[in-house]
Amino acid sequence: MKKIINKPENFIAEMLEGIYAAHPDQLTYANNDLHCLVSKHKVPGKVGISTGGGSGHLPLFLGYVGKGMLDGCAIGDVFQSPSAEQMFEITKEIDSGAGVLYIYGNYNGDIFNFDMAAEMADFEAEIRVESVVAGDDVASAGPANRGEKNTRRGVAGIFFVYKCAGAAAAEMMSLDEVKRVALKACDNVRTMGVGLSPCIVPRVGKPGFSIGDDEMEIGMGIHGETGIRRGKLLPADEIVDEILPQIINDLPYKSGDEVAVLINGLGGTPLEEQYVVFRRVHQILQAENISIARVYVGEYATAMEMAGLSISLLKLDDELKRLVKAQAETPFFKQFQL
Amino acid sequence: MKKIINKPENFIAEMLEGIYAAHPDQLTYANNDLHCLVSKHKVPGKVGISTGGGSGHLPLFLGYVGKGMLDGCAIGDVFQSPSAEQMFEITKEIDSGAGVLYIYGNYNGDIFNFDMAAEMADFEAEIRVESVVAGDDVASAGPANRGEKNTRRGVAGIFFVYKCAGAAAAEMMSLDEVKRVALKACDNVRTMGVGLSPCIVPRVGKPGFSIGDDEMEIGMGIHGETGIRRGKLLPADEIVDEILPQIINDLPYKSGDEVAVLINGLGGTPLEEQYVVFRRVHQILQAENISIARVYVGEYATAMEMAGLSISLLKLDDELKRLVKAQAETPFFKQFQL
Repeated sequence: MKKIINKPENFIAEMLEGIYAAHPDQLTYANNDLHCLVSKHKVPGKVGISTGGGSGHLPLFLGYVGKGMLDGCAIGDVFQSPSAEQMFEITKEIDSGAGVLYIYGNYNGDIFNFDMAAEMADFEAEIRVESVVAGDDVASAGPANRGEKNTRRGVAGIFFVYKCAGAAAAEMMSLDEVKRVALKACDNVRTMGVGLSPCIVPRVGKPGFSIGDDEMEIGMGIHGETGIRRGKLLPADEIVDEILPQIINDLPYKSGDEVAVLINGLGGTPLEEQYVVFRRVHQILQAENISIARVYVGEYATAMEMAGLSISLLKLDDELKRLVKAQAETPFFKQFQL
Repeated sequence: MKKIINKPENFIAEMLEGIYAAHPDQLTYANNDLHCLVSKHKVPGKVGISTGGGSGHLPLFLGYVGKGMLDGCAIGDVFQSPSAEQMFEITKEIDSGAGVLYIYGNYNGDIFNFDMAAEMADFEAEIRVESVVAGDDVASAGPANRGEKNTRRGVAGIFFVYKCAGAAAAEMMSLDEVKRVALKACDNVRTMGVGLSPCIVPRVGKPGFSIGDDEMEIGMGIHGETGIRRGKLLPADEIVDEILPQIINDLPYKSGDEVAVLINGLGGTPLEEQYVVFRRVHQILQAENISIARVYVGEYATAMEMAGLSISLLKLDDELKRLVKAQAETPFFKQFQL
């Protein structure tokens, strides 16, 4: 967990300087604030989509700003929410009259600030804003998870919400329709992960938690939040055999369903191992008669150098399938029309 | 360095099963051997390009098989060369009459086997084969590096050789012309890296070397080969200030040159840190009046969970610039026409 950084307090500003220098044709920032990232690709009359959250999860969140996906992203310090003012500045920049949709993960700081930004947009700029809070993590579902107080954390499955809503906005759907699509994606995506090692927040300088050399934690969150079971590290197939049925039974996903699958590396787990895991996921879904329309394997939502991975399923209907397969082009995610 | 695998001896076969299951429309294998990966995208009359090498470096090598890049890849066990027979089977599969170019890194096992495969292709199948050996690593350049005995290891810069040669083949250039392009890319690319931590080969089960908690090694190879200096871990900018001038002075890259840049993560170093490094590379190249036509930041050639990264520069002329910017679509690398 050694870091290639300069002063910890400059980490995110320097990362952002690197990102703007690397992608000058695609990305810029609003209000002279590096943390207010917006796409240079503008489509008049299109619904604007913004997201935001703490840093340390690349390519989440800012990596999905670009053609066919998002229009802006408010960037906080590592694992810290950006401010409502930053979110508001982005909202003004990306609105082109059709309104703005906020899509973000279910974390208290983000909810508080995005709600405040939506009020500022309404009162100060007369921009209509709608919000969709993604909470796809099965492990953090409390007893009231199907009710009003959703305790599910937003994790890697938010990628699918961005993808579908972004494609819907690119089809020039209205704000209500893009919100409907985002909610449908949220309703149909579930994720669960396993953590093997901690990560170090640069300003803190030490691991966020400790875990034994032979241990893993099923259901750990992407900031190291407590999962549902800590135990001895199991072989890959046994990990999948423990996690995937909990995902399948949660929605539930049923025989005859069609899904998109995301195997997401948390940072420190090599791509080779992610494919070993997909192999087992593929076997189980075949046995369950759940067909796979689209597969993503790689790092989509990380926790810096944390070892581990997550599995996400998105249940598809004709509309979500069309939107998942639509073309997209951001500096961090590219997909040709499938 | 905990691994999500099953039995170590099944690691690569299970990884490959996962890859074929995930990308059934794009990838398949020849001779009923999972290690003989070929593209399903066939273009009659096109020069075939094949590569190969040990596993553990995803997306290198197999990740670059697809439209606009490579046609086949022979896959060895972790850090082990595949066999000449496997290379030969791929050669027969991807030849469509225009001949086949082998592009691979400068490692003895690979050279031995690819040379034997080329002889088998000639004698047993009458397929014309040419070979280009990539050796872009500045740190391993011995005194004879500009002469016949090139000691430079092939590292992340081979990505640029694949990209340019693949685009040249897609333009339907002849075998001689595609080879000329590949050699030109080799001549104009230089790489140097820094290693911070070891990785574990699954069959071995322990780290390949040890390094102090506060140490780094400048010039380390992607299998943990000895670099040129081990010392205390420096801040990001100081690492770049040590590495980049050695790259620039090696070719040398000069004021007025135009380059493509690759910041390559070795596996355990987060994308955030890679962008902090690009920020400094950008500053230095600006000061040197070397302009940047194209930037790649991410994991392009890894060493499983090793922490560290490398910096590559490719000097561009009009032809290489056109080829670098050409469209490509593989499961692991996608680029829209720029």
